[in-house]
Amino acid sequence: KPVTGFIGQVIEYINNQNTKVVSIDIPSGLFADKSSVDSGGAIINADVTLSFEFAKKAFMFSENLPFVKEWEIMSINLHPDFVKSVDKADYLVLVNDIQALIKKRRKFDHKGRFGHALLIAGSYGKMGAAVLASEACMRAGAGLLTTHVPKMGYDIIQTAVPEVMTSIDRSETSFSELPDLDPYNAIGIGPGIGQDKETRTALKVLIQNTGLPLLFDADAINILGENKTWLSFIPPGCIFTPHPKEFERLVGKSNNAFERDKLQREFSVRYGAYVILKGYSTAISCPDGMCFYNSTGNPGMATGGSGDVLTGVILGLLAQGYTSLEACLVGTYLHGLAGDLASEDLGYEASLASDITGHIGYAYQALEK
Amino acid sequence: KPVTGFIGQVIEYINNQNTKVVSIDIPSGLFADKSSVDSGGAIINADVTLSFEFAKKAFMFSENLPFVKEWEIMSINLHPDFVKSVDKADYLVLVNDIQALIKKRRKFDHKGRFGHALLIAGSYGKMGAAVLASEACMRAGAGLLTTHVPKMGYDIIQTAVPEVMTSIDRSETSFSELPDLDPYNAIGIGPGIGQDKETRTALKVLIQNTGLPLLFDADAINILGENKTWLSFIPPGCIFTPHPKEFERLVGKSNNAFERDKLQREFSVRYGAYVILKGYSTAISCPDGMCFYNSTGNPGMATGGSGDVLTGVILGLLAQGYTSLEACLVGTYLHGLAGDLASEDLGYEASLASDITGHIGYAYQALEK
Amino acid sequence: KPVTGFIGQVIEYINNQNTKVVSIDIPSGLFADKSSVDSGGAIINADVTLSFEFAKKAFMFSENLPFVKEWEIMSINLHPDFVKSVDKADYLVLVNDIQALIKKRRKFDHKGRFGHALLIAGSYGKMGAAVLASEACMRAGAGLLTTHVPKMGYDIIQTAVPEVMTSIDRSETSFSELPDLDPYNAIGIGPGIGQDKETRTALKVLIQNTGLPLLFDADAINILGENKTWLSFIPPGCIFTPHPKEFERLVGKSNNAFERDKLQREFSVRYGAYVILKGYSTAISCPDGMCFYNSTGNPGMATGGSGDVLTGVILGLLAQGYTSLEACLVGTYLHGLAGDLASEDLGYEASLASDITGHIGYAYQALEK
Amino acid sequence: KPVTGFIGQVIEYINNQNTKVVSIDIPSGLFADKSSVDSGGAIINADVTLSFEFAKKAFMFSENLPFVKEWEIMSINLHPDFVKSVDKADYLVLVNDIQALIKKRRKFDHKGRFGHALLIAGSYGKMGAAVLASEACMRAGAGLLTTHVPKMGYDIIQTAVPEVMTSIDRSETSFSELPDLDPYNAIGIGPGIGQDKETRTALKVLIQNTGLPLLFDADAINILGENKTWLSFIPPGCIFTPHPKEFERLVGKSNNAFERDKLQREFSVRYGAYVILKGYSTAISCPDGMCFYNSTGNPGMATGGSGDVLTGVILGLLAQGYTSLEACLVGTYLHGLAGDLASEDLGYEASLASDITGHIGYAYQALEK
Repeated sequence: KPVTGFIGQVIEYINNQNTKVVSIDIPSGLFADKSSVDSGGAIINADVTLSFEFAKKAFMFSENLPFVKEWEIMSINLHPDFVKSVDKADYLVLVNDIQALIKKRRKFDHKGRFGHALLIAGSYGKMGAAVLASEACMRAGAGLLTTHVPKMGYDIIQTAVPEVMTSIDRSETSFSELPDLDPYNAIGIGPGIGQDKETRTALKVLIQNTGLPLLFDADAINILGENKTWLSFIPPGCIFTPHPKEFERLVGKSNNAFERDKLQREFSVRYGAYVILKGYSTAISCPDGMCFYNSTGNPGMATGGSGDVLTGVILGLLAQGYTSLEACLVGTYLHGLAGDLASEDLGYEASLASDITGHIGYAYQALEK
Repeated sequence: KPVTGFIGQVIEYINNQNTKVVSIDIPSGLFADKSSVDSGGAIINADVTLSFEFAKKAFMFSENLPFVKEWEIMSINLHPDFVKSVDKADYLVLVNDIQALIKKRRKFDHKGRFGHALLIAGSYGKMGAAVLASEACMRAGAGLLTTHVPKMGYDIIQTAVPEVMTSIDRSETSFSELPDLDPYNAIGIGPGIGQDKETRTALKVLIQNTGLPLLFDADAINILGENKTWLSFIPPGCIFTPHPKEFERLVGKSNNAFERDKLQREFSVRYGAYVILKGYSTAISCPDGMCFYNSTGNPGMATGGSGDVLTGVILGLLAQGYTSLEACLVGTYLHGLAGDLASEDLGYEASLASDITGHIGYAYQALEK
Repeated sequence: KPVTGFIGQVIEYINNQNTKVVSIDIPSGLFADKSSVDSGGAIINADVTLSFEFAKKAFMFSENLPFVKEWEIMSINLHPDFVKSVDKADYLVLVNDIQALIKKRRKFDHKGRFGHALLIAGSYGKMGAAVLASEACMRAGAGLLTTHVPKMGYDIIQTAVPEVMTSIDRSETSFSELPDLDPYNAIGIGPGIGQDKETRTALKVLIQNTGLPLLFDADAINILGENKTWLSFIPPGCIFTPHPKEFERLVGKSNNAFERDKLQREFSVRYGAYVILKGYSTAISCPDGMCFYNSTGNPGMATGGSGDVLTGVILGLLAQGYTSLEACLVGTYLHGLAGDLASEDLGYEASLASDITGHIGYAYQALEK
Repeated sequence: KPVTGFIGQVIEYINNQNTKVVSIDIPSGLFADKSSVDSGGAIINADVTLSFEFAKKAFMFSENLPFVKEWEIMSINLHPDFVKSVDKADYLVLVNDIQALIKKRRKFDHKGRFGHALLIAGSYGKMGAAVLASEACMRAGAGLLTTHVPKMGYDIIQTAVPEVMTSIDRSETSFSELPDLDPYNAIGIGPGIGQDKETRTALKVLIQNTGLPLLFDADAINILGENKTWLSFIPPGCIFTPHPKEFERLVGKSNNAFERDKLQREFSVRYGAYVILKGYSTAISCPDGMCFYNSTGNPGMATGGSGDVLTGVILGLLAQGYTSLEACLVGTYLHGLAGDLASEDLGYEASLASDITGHIGYAYQALEK
């Protein structure tokens, strides 16, 4: 319950001092598992929080940033059985989780194929998104990538990313017709496609014509947000990668992060889909109602095109045979780690989305250690 | 008063010797606070000047370069009260001033948004300016950038800088219509826009339709210089970034640097605007009549497109919430420092404008130390 | 003969243990010189094989990867006469073989000319292949390169690779007419050309109009696969660089790698041509029936455009005066080594085809040591 | 006189031995100051030549490469008066000569202007030459560069080199009309312009309309070679940068390098122009009949576009106020040194013309030491 009275006054007093505040386990007054927004109580504004054994769910949400800035986990040697008994509906993804999922290529591996992805992206005025997502998909390791673009975007994509093959729409300016889907084992749609009427129709046709789990981003999410009945027809295991505003259009409004977290899980359960809600600690909800929180990334990644790069990375992983869940977890972690490495090189301000892509290789290498 | 007679002859004699000349405080015969051009007196041509406690105003102007080449400040431990009493209408910006202004991003900061800038730039034949300013704006840390370009410039900007979003004019060749200004929290206009009739009109419409402080560069300044009545309508806190010739068209002619300096301050006071006069020691005049002199930069930056990069940097800072004054001071310093780092890598001759942009990240990092 | 009975059961038992298996000379049950596929016998799944004096032919084929992963050669000091008596119809190309073939340029060499290559590549939707092959050809050391492209591809190739000269087809979209062949001393055709009717005809005209050994890749191979009668007219010493599917269309199907190996040699003998079958250990068959196996390369090279880069490298070598055989051996080795160096820098997943090209210079330098 | 008889037989015997041959001063049988081609005598094929005090003129020509490969100068402490008395009509340009000519920029230099160059370059199919020369001109230190291109080349040049300003011809495909020449203090013409009829006419108009020393390259030289009467109208101090075939078209044929050298000087004297004959030891002839030989460069520079880069470098120097002679000497040396540094990084084979440009900054820095 909210902290008020004398203890509340003590908290306010501490918050008003100009000293560094360290909290143990969780800042006093902060709720671990429900929203503290409008709680009416006083909450310690900790600079550093040393938490026992587990990160608290409250640490995942930016609405608690005034209370929880830096935080670290301290192991207190709980009995292993106790640890296992903890509810795992929330899971903080750490480096060893990802290392266990990475499909390492070894010198003597079968060179075979690393899949053929289809990316439907770009429209007149928004071709940059297609360029960024395409290069990211290739650098994430896709064997082949075909990017479907409108006619006017052909020169741009081919000059910028010669490794990409192209499928060219009959429309000059936007996505209006489905290419033959047979060659592809992974399909992503959304970066820069806009919301033209013919684009909406073509998206609908795509949903009706494939059994592959689709990756929806950006305007593909916005279109589905306005046509929610179509959601009933999406194949199982689809992935959505909304930023907060796209999330709201797709899933609905909420008063605080805990409520939003609940809505996110319900959406995933209802449509058998994965939702990657991009933000402070990117949250990945699953068809079984579980939610994973990502631990990489930094404020240098809040830059135009960063989301397009994430879409490319996840698509590249799907092409290589990662399951939807694996692609979500590994892709989000890798994207954040590449962004962290880019910021180490160039600083938070100067890092661009293409610098994240440029550091994907180093992120893979860092995970090998 | 001008130095003549015997002392003047001694000065001439010293100047004609082939030796290195060191002056203390200020070269003999040079006026500290007024123009020495056409003074009629003799002035020492010092190679190095060791100045007491403060740089003299005369050191800021290239017209005094024959007399003042390298200069250093020597502290003579003046009583602090004395230092404070010195007129601060002139201020030499040094590294610690800028470090105090930089809004540092920390790992646990709210990722939030770093603003959405609008850049109106480019015309047929001058699209390079739009490319250079756009990448600089992103690398200075803007969250999102939309560049408004004429139709023919779309392929160029999108191939060169995929991170940029675009707004496309109905005109094939130039800026002719205002985009919706609602999404933007910072607006810059000028690099490469030319001076077509419809561009003039569109600039006027822009001034009439926003309360945001506008950043004017290049042909935007030239147009305003020919339409000075429009200046009465500019919002408060606008920024002008003229080079000397553009300055003259906007503010008028002057006989020497001190006179020009006075005109610059008067313009700033009259229109409530900041003027960044690019040159030897870039001078930043403010609405309160004060003037700041920048201490970074080098002759390697006198290269085509260097000014477009400065415009991009300042716009990127405005988008992130820096005030007009902060954006002027930090932007000018950062741009000069990035240029200094670029020249260290590549030499003065070979550094291009895009190399300045490529070193913005390193400049930010140098300021963190 | 296949291993069955008790020994077979021992092999199955070992394979089911979760331990590292080292085989000496060759994994028990594996045939050295014929296919073990469908042999019906048990075969050891070795993790490491230490082989006496020679690599066994069975090690060259990916169908044996379950049995042979890493392998090393152990010298057992066979009498030199014995070594020489071994049938040399199979040859594993190692670093010293290539070092002996490289035409080193020395400071005081005649600068003369390093040839003028013609590359016929690209069509609407497939210009990336032309870009990749062109830059690779230049970086392999061709003195001059003219790339013949359809009209719509001109801007793309010239923006991406300004060092290339262009020959522009009268067709907007595909290769339809032969340029004057006089200036060229090496000709390659195929990357991204498609299979339009007029392209088929123009390919036929090319074959009829030159005595130079031609380098055929990609769709040029596919067209010839459907027009096998044209093969009788190809000049002596031509080179084909098919991937396995293109190989099948050109040469026919086979049940296992040994059968395919035999077909490859027969094709080379019949048409006096070199066939570079790209794959696990790229196999280079010769007009005299011999076959060379390449020892460089890695799974990071199974990425879109990797084959286009190989075509460019071989064409660049032909231009410099390497014979067809030398160009095949050196080109395949250099391409694989550049890929190995690229993967060391960027990891297997993140290396793109253009990164292979970017490492050609380092590969040459590694060979100089 | 030619070496025959017994000594000749000894020379032949030595040449047939498989040993390293060192010659002192000059290989026996080689003429120092006249052609040894078809001399009828025997000449030692030296691997290394150690020459007294001066490089012999014969060392400058590639026709003597069989006899003189590596050579070094040994000082024998000749009396200074003797050294000065040697005919200086031939001069080998060494690093200290160039260091004395470089106009160093210092931190406190007037930033002023480093000139505004005009480059007329490019045509349909040959825009790469314009791109290469433009970037080289900027990296050599020109303050501003305007490149005049045909309409179809605009997107290419502006995407590749955003720092360049453009002047756009009314012709879609080639140079056909003179831009206003007023803003420029240096003009270069030729890379990739082709030889269209209207281009010839426009070149003639250019010659008639400027008093600036013009820099002629490539097709500009070929056009003048076919219209030798126009040469009488060129302004004083013009520079020609032919490769051997262009030289022949302009100046005429010769039987050997000494004859060609004589023709080159005569041409320079006759037309008051500098001729830079690109080759093994690039030779720079002057209006006073003197000839300078360059000592930088390597066989890695015999690659498409290398000459366009030289044109850009010299034009960039002219813009900065170097005289025609200084620009010829410094430009040739700097271009060769940048090529040497590029080859150190990437090897002879893999270095492209744009890599020379990329190393101009390092070449300047190497000269500062």
